[in-house]
Amino acid sequence: VPGVGEIIVTGTVHGRDETIDALLDAALAHVRRSRTEPGCLSHHVLRDAEDPNRLFFFERWADRAALDAHFAVPASAEFVGRLRELATGTPTMQIVETA
Amino acid sequence: VPGVGEIIVTGTVHGRDETIDALLDAALAHVRRSRTEPGCLSHHVLRDAEDPNRLFFFERWADRAALDAHFAVPASAEFVGRLRELATGTPTMQIVETA
Repeated sequence: VPGVGEIIVTGTVHGRDETIDALLDAALAHVRRSRTEPGCLSHHVLRDAEDPNRLFFFERWADRAALDAHFAVPASAEFVGRLRELATGTPTMQIVETA
Repeated sequence: VPGVGEIIVTGTVHGRDETIDALLDAALAHVRRSRTEPGCLSHHVLRDAEDPNRLFFFERWADRAALDAHFAVPASAEFVGRLRELATGTPTMQIVETA
C-alpha cells in the first residue's frame, strides 16, 4: 500500500501496428533499468485491453528526489527520445504525490 | 493532470491461459459500466507487457464519496465475485488520495 508522500507517475504512448513491437522493446528495457534505481518502488508497462497499441506506464517512487534523480539519468532522456521517434502523437505523463 | 483530493485506485488480478479471456470480458464490462458512474474520471484495464495473464486496473475518481458510491453499486460486488471465481490467487487493490 503506498505511503504518504510517495510519487505515482503514469504515462501513455500510442504506437501503430508497425511500431508497437519496437516501442515495447524500448519500454521494457526502460522499465527493467528503472527498477534498479534508488527509490523505485515499482515500474510496469502495460497494454490497454481496449487498444493494444496504447501503452501505459505505472511507476511508484519513494519521493520526489528519487524521481528527479531518475529523470537525470541519461538513459531516461534517451528513452524519451526513442519514444518520440516511435510514437504516434505526443506521449503524455502525469505525476502525483500521495496524501 | 489529477487535482488535489482525487482518488486513484489500482488493482491487480492474475489469470491463466484458460481463464484470461473470461477475465478480460468481465473486466471490460466493469470498466465500461464504471465510466458511466458519477465522479469516475477514468477507468482502464490493461495487460502487463511482461505477463499477459496479469491484468491491471487504473481508475481515477473525483473524490472518496464517488468511490464509495461506486463500491455500493451491486454490479461492483458482482464483478468482484466474478474476479474471485476466475482469478489465480487473491486480487489486490490499492486506494490513494492525491496531495
